[in-house]
Amino acid sequence: METKHIVVLGAGFGGLTFCQAFNHPQARVTLVDRQNHHLFQPLLYQVATAGLSAPEIAQPVRSILSDRPSVTVLLDTVVDFNLAEKKVFLEKNTLAYDYLVLALGGVTSYFGHPEWEQFAPGLKSLDDALRIRRRILLAFEKAENETDAAARDRLMTIVVVGGGPTGVELAGAFAELVRRVLRKDFRRIDPAQARVILIEAGPRVLAHLPPGLSASAQRQLEKLGVEVRVGVKVKTITQGRVEPENGRIIEAENIIWAAGVSASALTQKLRTELDHAGRVKVKPDLSLPGHPEVFAIGDMALVLDQDGKPVPGVSPAAMQMARKIARIIRDELDLGAGHAARPPFKYWDKGTMATIGRSAAVAKIGKLEFTGFLAWIAWLFVHLIFLIGFRNKLAVLLQWTYSYLAYKRGARIVTGLSEAARSKN
Amino acid sequence: METKHIVVLGAGFGGLTFCQAFNHPQARVTLVDRQNHHLFQPLLYQVATAGLSAPEIAQPVRSILSDRPSVTVLLDTVVDFNLAEKKVFLEKNTLAYDYLVLALGGVTSYFGHPEWEQFAPGLKSLDDALRIRRRILLAFEKAENETDAAARDRLMTIVVVGGGPTGVELAGAFAELVRRVLRKDFRRIDPAQARVILIEAGPRVLAHLPPGLSASAQRQLEKLGVEVRVGVKVKTITQGRVEPENGRIIEAENIIWAAGVSASALTQKLRTELDHAGRVKVKPDLSLPGHPEVFAIGDMALVLDQDGKPVPGVSPAAMQMARKIARIIRDELDLGAGHAARPPFKYWDKGTMATIGRSAAVAKIGKLEFTGFLAWIAWLFVHLIFLIGFRNKLAVLLQWTYSYLAYKRGARIVTGLSEAARSKN
Repeated sequence: METKHIVVLGAGFGGLTFCQAFNHPQARVTLVDRQNHHLFQPLLYQVATAGLSAPEIAQPVRSILSDRPSVTVLLDTVVDFNLAEKKVFLEKNTLAYDYLVLALGGVTSYFGHPEWEQFAPGLKSLDDALRIRRRILLAFEKAENETDAAARDRLMTIVVVGGGPTGVELAGAFAELVRRVLRKDFRRIDPAQARVILIEAGPRVLAHLPPGLSASAQRQLEKLGVEVRVGVKVKTITQGRVEPENGRIIEAENIIWAAGVSASALTQKLRTELDHAGRVKVKPDLSLPGHPEVFAIGDMALVLDQDGKPVPGVSPAAMQMARKIARIIRDELDLGAGHAARPPFKYWDKGTMATIGRSAAVAKIGKLEFTGFLAWIAWLFVHLIFLIGFRNKLAVLLQWTYSYLAYKRGARIVTGLSEAARSKN
Repeated sequence: METKHIVVLGAGFGGLTFCQAFNHPQARVTLVDRQNHHLFQPLLYQVATAGLSAPEIAQPVRSILSDRPSVTVLLDTVVDFNLAEKKVFLEKNTLAYDYLVLALGGVTSYFGHPEWEQFAPGLKSLDDALRIRRRILLAFEKAENETDAAARDRLMTIVVVGGGPTGVELAGAFAELVRRVLRKDFRRIDPAQARVILIEAGPRVLAHLPPGLSASAQRQLEKLGVEVRVGVKVKTITQGRVEPENGRIIEAENIIWAAGVSASALTQKLRTELDHAGRVKVKPDLSLPGHPEVFAIGDMALVLDQDGKPVPGVSPAAMQMARKIARIIRDELDLGAGHAARPPFKYWDKGTMATIGRSAAVAKIGKLEFTGFLAWIAWLFVHLIFLIGFRNKLAVLLQWTYSYLAYKRGARIVTGLSEAARSKN
């Protein structure tokens, strides 16, 4: 039998898990990503809030897969597809495939207002996180230098738009950063006077959790000093200003957008049916209609679970999908395509959690609900277990222990000042 | 007595040590730096070679000095001086001083060829280090994608210009990175075939050490796979090409400049006598001629030791100078200026060392000379002791232990790809 070529696009949780789960003597795999690293996205907010350094939540893809000689890693960017001819066009290469795994993930979505991005950056990549960290830390440096009281207040205000898990985690971590960590570092300003405002359009934060947990999360946020404003819809965002549809304009040097995610724009080049967020509507076996050799998984796929509800865009779901198609492809290589109907994907919900701050979190595991310290310990434990790479686990554990004991943050380093200055000119 | 204002320019080893050593009830101190962090420069080459992450060798200046309420930290850039009126002009502030401590450090010098900088970056800041790391790692990614053999060889060649401590450390660390760490990560290229070439214009590497240690260093470098070429003077550098005055042109995607350091260009605005490297010729008490209230220390000062030889530009010397002037200023505040002649600065040479790689180093402590494993252990020990900040010590020790045991490098993460692309456009 000739060797089959499987092309995997994206080295996030989905693509990487596929490469780790799949192995077949008659197949070779090519994994393509724009970046040289796999990013542990659930901890990205800690890089943005100066709790962790970038390499601690990222691992070189090549290094993770160095013990898989059948996998070739390419640093390249996807440009277009020709599904009829089974080809993918990259910036530097063209790849012909027998099976194609689409795992390109999601991008920040501004709900039809792409012009807001420049004023309210989202958080999807390490570069995003480092940029946000730089802007927040520099705002306090500017405030220390500012004599005008109103300008100083604006510099010391952070708005987070969106009360989902990312928004809640960011708001909590910013509040801890400014109120506790930076407290003693300045002479002219008092960072404890800084404001962190969380805006959510819906009636409660963490809408995917039961109402009791949402209420608990809001209480825990407020205890940390976050101003939580629910039912506030954003009308427009300009430089340093958020204007809600209802309520007063907020002036804030830093506005972070955590309100929406849509699928990678590349899904539009697939000529297949998409939902409103640009996600590919896949069949129950995760393949594209009319293309049993093409699969879409993770944040770029709309997958319905047993009850007809969309599977949430979380990493455990992407990993389950990756293992599922690894099994499907392996079986077909062993027994021939069409040997049997492919079984549908079933999502196993292991639970949901969100962390808010030091000893503050909410978690739902099965029918059990936890809040506060217990939920926080569960969150720590789960994230350490799943953080890829032994070294990173140790380094992150060390950082967290240190932060917990010393109320400091290790990664409060601004880099890229010269590059930022250059790109302004 | 009125409060005296002491302005310190630069938060390197000199400026920071002054702020830590100086304390007087009738004085307040303002420390100015362009960056928000103190950089542990002796380990910068490890960030460039993906051994350490940026925050591990940097600490926020505010955090280091948070227990010193008399010190104000300003993130600002020095623009000019008026020594007659005792004023410093910054981009955003103007500061009047009673005492001025100049500790602005050095910059990479291209010996009258500033146009080489774009083709052969130097290594002075965290941004420099991250840029070099990005370029080296991306060169191997490009090589994996390259079909032309000559182009592939060029992508896999690294030239380091300058055989001083920085050049030797960089060349050794690059050789280990490509020959050991990256070895298993690629499918089409063999990183062990990569070349690392160290060029030195003089007759031997590490010319500041005895000839026996230079010879040992060269042997240890060659054992790691570095091609050491002494007596080779650079005639010109263009994109990807080094042309020596004697010998063949070398084609290399990455050329790193480690050949020269001069004082910050700001010394030219002081209207005082400078040496050929732009360093301020200070009096034996480290003050400027005609300005007993202005001191220059560290890499920006030409200080002669007891034998009339220049004190080397190393961090222990800068720290000794800082403590010296902290004592001078304190005594004058207590007893009045001119109460007694200021004693001259005496440099205490604690020894010199350079690391080459895993278990490879040279060291000279007093009259004792060490090479190999023993020198390496001494180097590790000294650098851990002096690395500022408890957390960083632990994190660096952990990284090093891991690298030593696993032959991996944790910080092989490319960030700033999008910014790099933007600045190209």
